[in-house]
Amino acid sequence: MALIVQKFGGTSVGSPERMKAVARRIADTKKAGNDVVVVVSAMGHTTDELIDLARRISPDPPPREMDMLLTAGERISMALLAMAIHDFGCEAASYTGSQAGIITTTEHGRAKIVDVRTARVTEALSRGLIAIVAGFQGVSETADITTLGRGGSDTTAVALAAALHADVCEIFTDVDGVYTADPRIVPEARILHAVSYEEMLEMASAGARVLMARAVEFARNHGVVVHVRSSFNDRTGTFVRQEDERMEKAIISGVTHDTSEAKVTVQGVPDRPGIAARLFGELAGEGINVDMIVQNVSVDGHTDISFTVSRDDAARAMAVVEPIAGEIGAAGASVDPEIGKISLVGAGMRSHPGVASAMFAALSESGVNIEMISTSSIRVSCVVRERDVVRAVRAVHDRFNLSEEAIIREIHPG
Amino acid sequence: MALIVQKFGGTSVGSPERMKAVARRIADTKKAGNDVVVVVSAMGHTTDELIDLARRISPDPPPREMDMLLTAGERISMALLAMAIHDFGCEAASYTGSQAGIITTTEHGRAKIVDVRTARVTEALSRGLIAIVAGFQGVSETADITTLGRGGSDTTAVALAAALHADVCEIFTDVDGVYTADPRIVPEARILHAVSYEEMLEMASAGARVLMARAVEFARNHGVVVHVRSSFNDRTGTFVRQEDERMEKAIISGVTHDTSEAKVTVQGVPDRPGIAARLFGELAGEGINVDMIVQNVSVDGHTDISFTVSRDDAARAMAVVEPIAGEIGAAGASVDPEIGKISLVGAGMRSHPGVASAMFAALSESGVNIEMISTSSIRVSCVVRERDVVRAVRAVHDRFNLSEEAIIREIHPG
Repeated sequence: MALIVQKFGGTSVGSPERMKAVARRIADTKKAGNDVVVVVSAMGHTTDELIDLARRISPDPPPREMDMLLTAGERISMALLAMAIHDFGCEAASYTGSQAGIITTTEHGRAKIVDVRTARVTEALSRGLIAIVAGFQGVSETADITTLGRGGSDTTAVALAAALHADVCEIFTDVDGVYTADPRIVPEARILHAVSYEEMLEMASAGARVLMARAVEFARNHGVVVHVRSSFNDRTGTFVRQEDERMEKAIISGVTHDTSEAKVTVQGVPDRPGIAARLFGELAGEGINVDMIVQNVSVDGHTDISFTVSRDDAARAMAVVEPIAGEIGAAGASVDPEIGKISLVGAGMRSHPGVASAMFAALSESGVNIEMISTSSIRVSCVVRERDVVRAVRAVHDRFNLSEEAIIREIHPG
Repeated sequence: MALIVQKFGGTSVGSPERMKAVARRIADTKKAGNDVVVVVSAMGHTTDELIDLARRISPDPPPREMDMLLTAGERISMALLAMAIHDFGCEAASYTGSQAGIITTTEHGRAKIVDVRTARVTEALSRGLIAIVAGFQGVSETADITTLGRGGSDTTAVALAAALHADVCEIFTDVDGVYTADPRIVPEARILHAVSYEEMLEMASAGARVLMARAVEFARNHGVVVHVRSSFNDRTGTFVRQEDERMEKAIISGVTHDTSEAKVTVQGVPDRPGIAARLFGELAGEGINVDMIVQNVSVDGHTDISFTVSRDDAARAMAVVEPIAGEIGAAGASVDPEIGKISLVGAGMRSHPGVASAMFAALSESGVNIEMISTSSIRVSCVVRERDVVRAVRAVHDRFNLSEEAIIREIHPG
């Protein structure tokens, strides 16, 4: 008998019919002899509808009340899911984040989990119940209702799995697992049987939407084995877990892409100390997340600085950059939204030099121009034209033979 | 400066526009120097929609989960109301029933309030906040979320007013107050300035929909002054309060009617002890509420027993009655849904004999036949044909000159 945490997203419970399918799966897991804790998001578009309702009331709603409003979404889905499970012959009880002991900081809309007090969930399990817990929400130490922000439900599931010492945290989603590349672009892309936390983190921040970086980080810090799998079939998906010696054989895990960013360039920046610090300091002060930063070699005492931000933040970034560019005597500043980022991720890169150059060669041979480059010990990212992204992903996937399974199979856990 | 509890029902906050109008009124009350606690119901048809959603999931949802589901309704409305108030320049914070300390019994769907722990609301008031509390919901002593059933939000408001020793509990509704008769039937009907708890209780159970009997009873038990008034204008409505010596001058407060009941008759019942006890015992056992009961004088050792129940319960009542009628050798049982009940209510009846006979005369003179009669010390009720109800109400209202204000004005409180 195992203790299993299962998390279902909004799409998985988007209609009464899907809700029942999910309930049947949960009941089957319980009937197989496991203790089951379920984390559920709000149904389908509920959260968006609630946000829209708030906008009709107030242009700038107080964050505390926004959290109170949004948490109605999981309350509805978790109660309905408990009802549906009941009809499959198992007993279930739903718990709000507060009732389930998800204690957070007080930052409404982006609270962080600081403690999980599992007494109530443990007690439910000991009575043979399936415990349904609202994802995305918690209660602050001042007893106010909070939400965890994007990726919150995944984080709730991982945090509960950590606190309960669950055997596995299953994240059910609308894809079959983590692929070597987006299968809509690369039809021969393959599901990875296992990736390390570090690889998953790099893939998440490089555009893989399947799991939020934040939840992966929590899993890594607490050693929670995460199983990303489809809510529409019973196939094994991808295990995200501690890297072990066997994993070294996998040089490359996958190639991801991201077309949600824009590139901002400040031209002709005088090559003086402190300018970059000021520029990125002010961007950070505005809460603008900067991804890649590239500074060219100085020519005649002047240089160009380019960086990427989310397209949603591009206008705000320019509002910060332009006055600074004027003040410091730069030649100008411009924003280019038509870019895409290709990233190659693999733990084996550390011990295998030449991965980056092989990637550049693949891009070059398919006629894709590289505009920016950034690397970590297990990732190489290139910014290219947005129109070149599909070609670039296919070229890189092909070059590293990612559709072949041989190496990866050896790291299948357990 | 006063402490005022204001309660707004679902219609009053049924749209963003109405929500804003309510917010403005609350903010005005606060700006006038009062401490304000607001109790709010779910918006418009939210509760019905949630019930419908549950039915699509499960034919017989567990009551605990039903309560978890339904309480999402007030969560949404209270958060939105707090946002709207914010835009009128006041600070507000919303609290669930649980956060506001509404402690109840564990009977899901029809929990009773057993305690109100006001610490959190009091603390909010001391910080200058308007406290918005979810109506209809509470938390049981086993920390499960409960709902209070019909009339629950009114009861929440009265209970909070009692616990906080509020100066008044204002119940905002879609009518201007308590009328001497339904103004849709009697155009010259007048708003009562004040009625006693006992009169309001009789009127509520006799068909006046403006305030649930349950909330009135709570108000009476704790001496809470209730002010029933319109959410659409600023006029004074009706005060419901302790009867005082000045009230004795008001013989009659109003005439109410109710066409939601059906009459069940068991004919030719052998006149033996224990039959009525068994009949009504079994009806009670099925949870069927019986209103009026009339047993005729025995003729040849046989009698007819008639009683009224909600039309919704009529079929279930017949299912209880028919087998008993067969067993005890009664002549038969029948149900008649085409009845209406007219009630005359007034605290002054106690000291003024002749009220009942004047009412019977008024009915008789207008050609209305009386089928059943039941009385209390401050009420006379007659069952008539449903088609005669309008004529009957007008005749009685007219006979007692209820459109004349003279006597009533003297009991205007304060």
